Amino acid sequence: MVQPLRFAEFTVGQRFAGPARTLTLDEIKVFAREFDPQPFHLDAAAAAASPFGELVASGWHTACLTMRLLVEGGLPIAGGIIGTGVDELRWRRPVRPGDTLRVESEVLEIIPSASRPGQGRMRVAARTFNQDGAQVMGWVGTLVVRGCPLLAAPRRRP
Amino acid sequence: MVQPLRFAEFTVGQRFAGPARTLTLDEIKVFAREFDPQPFHLDAAAAAASPFGELVASGWHTACLTMRLLVEGGLPIAGGIIGTGVDELRWRRPVRPGDTLRVESEVLEIIPSASRPGQGRMRVAARTFNQDGAQVMGWVGTLVVRGCPLLAAPRRRP
Repeated sequence: MVQPLRFAEFTVGQRFAGPARTLTLDEIKVFAREFDPQPFHLDAAAAAASPFGELVASGWHTACLTMRLLVEGGLPIAGGIIGTGVDELRWRRPVRPGDTLRVESEVLEIIPSASRPGQGRMRVAARTFNQDGAQVMGWVGTLVVRGCPLLAAPRRRP
Repeated sequence: MVQPLRFAEFTVGQRFAGPARTLTLDEIKVFAREFDPQPFHLDAAAAAASPFGELVASGWHTACLTMRLLVEGGLPIAGGIIGTGVDELRWRRPVRPGDTLRVESEVLEIIPSASRPGQGRMRVAARTFNQDGAQVMGWVGTLVVRGCPLLAAPRRRP
């Protein structure tokens, strides 16, 4: 797992790879019962008659699992991943029971705070892939990233 | 609960109000352990020292609860709520244990399918409010909405 980075340590174009996790049929149903109780996420027969043609995970389940994989190393920010918003969230392919998902993140933009030196916001792309390497989801998040002047001090030239 | 509508029955500007639901501390922690295991969603003492200053729900939890309230009547689409993407997701205010959230949706745009009459896509705004009437979250979703020519037939003038 990558050491978490502070604001000053990020650069545009940096990429990080997170861990992988397999989604089970039971997890898909448990999630759907709580947050997205639609037949195509809960019942194989009903799903067969739906536009999906088979039982698939809620897109929100994929989004939440992506967040977990980002927290678990896919986006190593010191102080944590704190988002103010997400744009361009796209569900590109269905996620099925037994699929193994992994995440990648990429720093798209770094926006220093005008009032707080060493802190700011970042726009970060998160991309989620299945076991075949096909992208199932992507989004662009805007995150608040803190600095730490004392710890960052050694990075200045003497 | 509103009768679910087919594609031809939606109009730009239409609004729907969904049910409300209270989020408990236990639910916030269970969700965070599974999908967003960061200290400010899991531990009151750690959260006090975080930028939030108190334990708050994961923003993804708010998003998922919003989906549930949309499915439970906040966005009555015949055939279900099937999204291809979300833009402009903004977490505007923290959600705290005991907060009661409710949703509103509004049809922003209707995009008929070029190839399938009576079907198409819609852009819909979802807005989530707390018990004080303050908006905690919003997003704009792009949804696939199906028609049903046989059922829709009586709407034509004879």
